[in-house]
Amino acid sequence: MSAIKFKIEKRLKGKLGRAGVLETPNGSIQTPAFVVVGTKATVKALTPEQVKDLGTQVVLANTYHLYLQPGDEIVAEAGGLRKFMNWQGPTMTDSGGFQVFSLGAAYGKEISKVVKITDPSLMIPERFDDSDAPCLAKIGQDGVSFKSHLDGSVHYITPEKSIQIQHNLGADMIFAFDECTSPAEDIRYQTEALDRTHRWAKRSLEEHIRLNKENKIALFGIVQGGREEDLRKKSAKSLSEMEVNGEGFDGFGIGGSFAKEDMSTAVKWVNEILPEEKPRHLLGIGEPEDLFMGIENGVDLFDCVAPTRIARNGSLYTGIGNINILNSKFISDFSKIDEDCHCYTCQNYTRAYLAHLFRGKEILANTLASIHNLYFIVSLVKKIRQSILDDNFADFKTDFLMRYK
Amino acid sequence: MSAIKFKIEKRLKGKLGRAGVLETPNGSIQTPAFVVVGTKATVKALTPEQVKDLGTQVVLANTYHLYLQPGDEIVAEAGGLRKFMNWQGPTMTDSGGFQVFSLGAAYGKEISKVVKITDPSLMIPERFDDSDAPCLAKIGQDGVSFKSHLDGSVHYITPEKSIQIQHNLGADMIFAFDECTSPAEDIRYQTEALDRTHRWAKRSLEEHIRLNKENKIALFGIVQGGREEDLRKKSAKSLSEMEVNGEGFDGFGIGGSFAKEDMSTAVKWVNEILPEEKPRHLLGIGEPEDLFMGIENGVDLFDCVAPTRIARNGSLYTGIGNINILNSKFISDFSKIDEDCHCYTCQNYTRAYLAHLFRGKEILANTLASIHNLYFIVSLVKKIRQSILDDNFADFKTDFLMRYK
Repeated sequence: MSAIKFKIEKRLKGKLGRAGVLETPNGSIQTPAFVVVGTKATVKALTPEQVKDLGTQVVLANTYHLYLQPGDEIVAEAGGLRKFMNWQGPTMTDSGGFQVFSLGAAYGKEISKVVKITDPSLMIPERFDDSDAPCLAKIGQDGVSFKSHLDGSVHYITPEKSIQIQHNLGADMIFAFDECTSPAEDIRYQTEALDRTHRWAKRSLEEHIRLNKENKIALFGIVQGGREEDLRKKSAKSLSEMEVNGEGFDGFGIGGSFAKEDMSTAVKWVNEILPEEKPRHLLGIGEPEDLFMGIENGVDLFDCVAPTRIARNGSLYTGIGNINILNSKFISDFSKIDEDCHCYTCQNYTRAYLAHLFRGKEILANTLASIHNLYFIVSLVKKIRQSILDDNFADFKTDFLMRYK
Repeated sequence: MSAIKFKIEKRLKGKLGRAGVLETPNGSIQTPAFVVVGTKATVKALTPEQVKDLGTQVVLANTYHLYLQPGDEIVAEAGGLRKFMNWQGPTMTDSGGFQVFSLGAAYGKEISKVVKITDPSLMIPERFDDSDAPCLAKIGQDGVSFKSHLDGSVHYITPEKSIQIQHNLGADMIFAFDECTSPAEDIRYQTEALDRTHRWAKRSLEEHIRLNKENKIALFGIVQGGREEDLRKKSAKSLSEMEVNGEGFDGFGIGGSFAKEDMSTAVKWVNEILPEEKPRHLLGIGEPEDLFMGIENGVDLFDCVAPTRIARNGSLYTGIGNINILNSKFISDFSKIDEDCHCYTCQNYTRAYLAHLFRGKEILANTLASIHNLYFIVSLVKKIRQSILDDNFADFKTDFLMRYK
């Protein structure tokens, strides 16, 4: 039996999309839903009350960061992630495997720092809300060794270790340890990496079942396979069928990077194969147009740091496209960021005030901008959900995307 | 008739201290009260709701900063300081004259940057909540010219200009333009500067009366005189008696710096002379022991950036002295910052979580630490007020100071 329960309420006619409810040990999530990222057990610049008030249903923290600081044992001793950070609702953690991608690492080779992806047509998932990354990593069959970006200490993460750390952190939903390959890698490497990811998925599942005696935690497997149709389909099939003592994954992540124009196709390949009664999480993707694409093709959960990261740079969503509040025309603009927005920021402050706070490098700028951008994205997903319930998805999508950009 | 009304409810036996109520056009303040500093129309790292919830009654913004950015006309167009920053209660602005001190400037000389005061026995008022300061200033009989720290533009502030700016900002209580001298200056300079401050006070009062047709704003004169008894007394007397068309100041600020051991004496000199029916504000002072000293000697209002500035460095008040949360022993300390504290931070977070946020350089660290420190100081002043009402001041003071440090 799973620690979570997923119920589909309505399907999108002729498409893979659906609206549902995901019940977790710490509250229900109406899906599709945008998962707000709180990398280091804090959604940057916001209190948990502010996170909740903007409509957030679930928060995702990053295992890699919390493992290094304060350490998963400290979080466990504090009573787990929820209690440590004072978040009352459902939580997720990623597996730390994404760091492998963020390094652009390759099997058996030592790689220092991130491979910069310059091709703008590639969709790079955005999964940590800062630039901390390990300095040096080495992938082996058993796991990944890396040097901490904080103190240079050397660590070795295996699938078992990742699951142990995540059980210490104690989120409601956790992920199998995977290798998220760089889109720059060739097919031979992608194939090898995918085999590794599947072996790691199996070991993650075994360790999870061993530790999950109280059945409080759900494990998601992660589909990889880069941009290759056959690899993506193979991955979806393997993970769907994977079992240990009759138990499979409780849900699935879809990881890796995609070519912008192929993303919907790739997501479709995968979701046509994944069991429809289990939730699917598209990892690190969350721009407005991508949300429509993902939901249409059967995605239930999204997480992405873009809303908060761009907020801190002064880039704010509006229904007719993004504005940069540092543009001098906003200094004396006493309208709201977005006239149609009901967020705390738009209800109480003008563009002129935001422009002033950003120019003054005031901390509150980050808070107010993050509230607005998260509200915009969280609400957009809620509206898309409602449009599915109302048999109105296609019109809503057309109207929104016509105005936006 | 004054825009504010001050009523003394109870006096401290044998001392100058009193508990009262100060009514402003935007709400009442129970005095003694700690005024929270919001330098650039924002209390650093806090929303106005957080500021209010921690018990703040009144916020003070800095004229110099708002004049340069976004400009007082922008704030006026926004509907004034309160509306611009979304603060529902009473507000104050300082006069900008303090910048003269922060430069260690001297009459007729051009001075670049701040004179560093290294004598730890000197009490340096702390009145802006960041390190922004003009690059170069020159004091004349008419006013002060300075270069903006933002863009090098040259500005000239006279008493009239300061009052015009402050009327544009539109706080409930504003201050006359003064010269806050460096304690390093000799008596000849202090005497000259004081004469100048008195002439500027008169001109400030004239301009204020001219502009205050709707009687919505109260003007406080600022007593100066450095560490000199006769100058302090002379200043208190001159300002008490100063009138324009039968109207005097609505209240008084006590400015300048003091020797730590002499401060209570200096405040006493002044408050024995100032009319007791008007409120008195000790500018830029607010450490716990100073609050007792000031209140005992007849001070009604304090402002100081120390609580928020030290909070952002991880220094947190507790009833038994300050702790630095970056000390490694707090990494696994799951107790509250202060077991006796009822602030939002102490009700919801552990020292371990704060230690983690500070080590991770997370923005929320500033928010939670500032809430705690401000709550501590704001509440301390409220408790001192209550002790006056309960005829219990001396015992409360002894008990508190015995435990604290």
